[in-house]
Amino acid sequence: MGTDPSPDPWEVARRWPVEQRVEIQSPDGSVWTGRVMPLHHLTGDRVLLLKLDSGYNVGLRIDPGTRFRLLPAEPRDERTGEPVARGPTPPPSGPAVALLTTGGTIASRVDYATGGVRPVRTAAEIMAFYPKLEQDGPVRIVPVVDRLSENITPDDWVRIAHEVVRAFGDGARGVVVAHGTDTLGYTAAALGFLLVDLPGPVVLVGAQRSPDRPSSDGPENLAAAVSVARRAPLGEVVVLMHADLSAHRFALHRGTRVRKMHSTRRDAFQSRNLPPLGYWTEGTLDLSGPVRPPRPGPPRVDGTLDAGAGGLLWFYPGLSAERAAAACAGLRGVIFAGTGLGHVAEIHLPWIRTAIAQGVVVGMTTQCLEGRVDPYVYATGRDLVGAGVLFLEDLLPETAYVKLLWALGQSRDPDEVRRLLATDRCGDLDGRRRPEGAR
Amino acid sequence: MGTDPSPDPWEVARRWPVEQRVEIQSPDGSVWTGRVMPLHHLTGDRVLLLKLDSGYNVGLRIDPGTRFRLLPAEPRDERTGEPVARGPTPPPSGPAVALLTTGGTIASRVDYATGGVRPVRTAAEIMAFYPKLEQDGPVRIVPVVDRLSENITPDDWVRIAHEVVRAFGDGARGVVVAHGTDTLGYTAAALGFLLVDLPGPVVLVGAQRSPDRPSSDGPENLAAAVSVARRAPLGEVVVLMHADLSAHRFALHRGTRVRKMHSTRRDAFQSRNLPPLGYWTEGTLDLSGPVRPPRPGPPRVDGTLDAGAGGLLWFYPGLSAERAAAACAGLRGVIFAGTGLGHVAEIHLPWIRTAIAQGVVVGMTTQCLEGRVDPYVYATGRDLVGAGVLFLEDLLPETAYVKLLWALGQSRDPDEVRRLLATDRCGDLDGRRRPEGAR
Repeated sequence: MGTDPSPDPWEVARRWPVEQRVEIQSPDGSVWTGRVMPLHHLTGDRVLLLKLDSGYNVGLRIDPGTRFRLLPAEPRDERTGEPVARGPTPPPSGPAVALLTTGGTIASRVDYATGGVRPVRTAAEIMAFYPKLEQDGPVRIVPVVDRLSENITPDDWVRIAHEVVRAFGDGARGVVVAHGTDTLGYTAAALGFLLVDLPGPVVLVGAQRSPDRPSSDGPENLAAAVSVARRAPLGEVVVLMHADLSAHRFALHRGTRVRKMHSTRRDAFQSRNLPPLGYWTEGTLDLSGPVRPPRPGPPRVDGTLDAGAGGLLWFYPGLSAERAAAACAGLRGVIFAGTGLGHVAEIHLPWIRTAIAQGVVVGMTTQCLEGRVDPYVYATGRDLVGAGVLFLEDLLPETAYVKLLWALGQSRDPDEVRRLLATDRCGDLDGRRRPEGAR
Repeated sequence: MGTDPSPDPWEVARRWPVEQRVEIQSPDGSVWTGRVMPLHHLTGDRVLLLKLDSGYNVGLRIDPGTRFRLLPAEPRDERTGEPVARGPTPPPSGPAVALLTTGGTIASRVDYATGGVRPVRTAAEIMAFYPKLEQDGPVRIVPVVDRLSENITPDDWVRIAHEVVRAFGDGARGVVVAHGTDTLGYTAAALGFLLVDLPGPVVLVGAQRSPDRPSSDGPENLAAAVSVARRAPLGEVVVLMHADLSAHRFALHRGTRVRKMHSTRRDAFQSRNLPPLGYWTEGTLDLSGPVRPPRPGPPRVDGTLDAGAGGLLWFYPGLSAERAAAACAGLRGVIFAGTGLGHVAEIHLPWIRTAIAQGVVVGMTTQCLEGRVDPYVYATGRDLVGAGVLFLEDLLPETAYVKLLWALGQSRDPDEVRRLLATDRCGDLDGRRRPEGAR
């Protein structure tokens, strides 16, 4: 580059006039060309907003080591020196993203015969709905399964995990999984436990409204997910959905910490017991949470799930011991969603003791869905610990169930299953306040 | 009253000087005497703050139809005409409140032998913990049951309902039910369905920390609950707990609309699908929600619960049809907490059809816990409706389960049970957006 960086290039860059054309080379070697946009208080210090010649906006951190040069006002063809018309660049120059489809609203359309929604089945149909998907780099569409998400099974989770690994092996910088929102949180948790050594982001995304309706959130969600998968310095499984009811702000949630908390709102997904990892706002990524960075790879699927061996049981007043015991018959493990700090009625203690004596792993979470369980406040908790129930800190009930299936797939030894369940694997569990410090 | 109401009495009242003494007669006939306090932006339009002669503050809505007269500056004894000293009145002059105890943290203390918490068992022990309880009127303590709330049963709910009716019959202006927080929401819902024609408030209250700990919320919660039970113009079952982490603001939630959403925070209770009915802030009651007014009475318990005949089943991916069917064996009714708009995997349709054909009532709610179910968006919903599943609008899963027990107690006819379940009884269900308009 022609101009040496000053000791702090941000002090130069922040004074550039709006509309100045610049070329910026980040310390990681990436090069960006575009027009300077007004500084925005939301993007924070050191972030320059640039409108690329493609019309796309990016937020760039101007750290020490960033190099740049000023350009003439209009983009010019490097070969002829002639001005180039503005507008979308010819596609596929940026890093590649794999888009795995599984069915669900984001890849669905209204079936006018029935008035209901049916899945979109072909890559061509998806690209027809989302024509701008490749404006910043190639997107390869990989159909994995094709069903509404209430019909997705634990076996599908394993299949999707293997397709994620294959996509990275085929050169994807990041992977997007388009998924129905109903069980998107369960799938995100499963991928979090199954996938290790991820070299880039795995971004699950859905739509609360189908893409051929004017109010659909599908196109925005998918575009944001593809952009985040292409660029974000993340080596973990995240869920990206609207952060609020504005059309321009998306939250990134850790896959094991997120839950669908509303049946229709487009900001239905909320992190529990952990703030969102970050936000994607009008082309700018703010990763303020405790993210897990990319790993050198290669990524792999670690183990599998024993889908038939685990269950999830929500306690409620009036649930009889006989009915609860029958609901758990034949299982190697069960997760309770108990009340408050992790309680069930004392009438359940006898069958729980019997089950544990027979090698069943019994884990406890809270149906409050936020806060942690704690067996040492009330007699009920101490009785449950005495019976051998494992208190699972701040794990969500659904995440604990998915983790149980994974742990049961790793071992047939109840003690090893208990150890795996109670150990943080991917930022899913925070045991900081465990009195026994047993981690 | 001496002064005719102007066309809008609020236009007069809002201009009264601070400290002006007034007597106000609300359209419901209640009469209040006290000094005008400064208008407060938090109380909203049309709310006048009045400091009563007792030193107690109240917020009054000045609606059209309100009548008033101005009074001399000092309160005077009506018999002698002499000025009366200001300040807290000598005890037990206000309306009586009954405090029903059921066990739980609010009536518990640390047992130093075990380090755990044990219930407080006698009225004397409770009064020793809460010496100011009677400062504004008599409080009669009625022990009903004595257990941690995870052990409370549907039979206990019926017992508590009958004690509430008895307390009103014995002259209480309002009733407080002190209850462990773990299942407080379930009990509140049950009382909402069981109790009709309430002449005053039934206020459920708990504590997230036991009363002999410095951080306990018990004393504040109980004092606020007693005050609200004594004064509030409510004829319904509410839950009163901290609205936030300040010590001075309490939210009133409708009993059928509230859920414990955190295992430890003292503002753990949150209304779902309905804003709180109001707030109690430093002695002022702001009832801004759609409250149900007191009824002339007498109150009664309408029906009972068939506790063994209903169940609650949370759907999750991997739940097999056999296990789900077994969990519902022998029941007359079951509530599903389905995903999203009210879905379960299609593998469950056959056993659901069989169960419904055998007379089982199957209701659908959403495990999102907010928003409503809707069977007419996806094929899954239409299939479930076709099988005879009843979609329960915006009912909470736990509230729907409690309502099911009540409906099963009312009738053995499945059609009648379905009608009762789907009909709003106490502000528990809002069917405004039901396409079929079947209410």
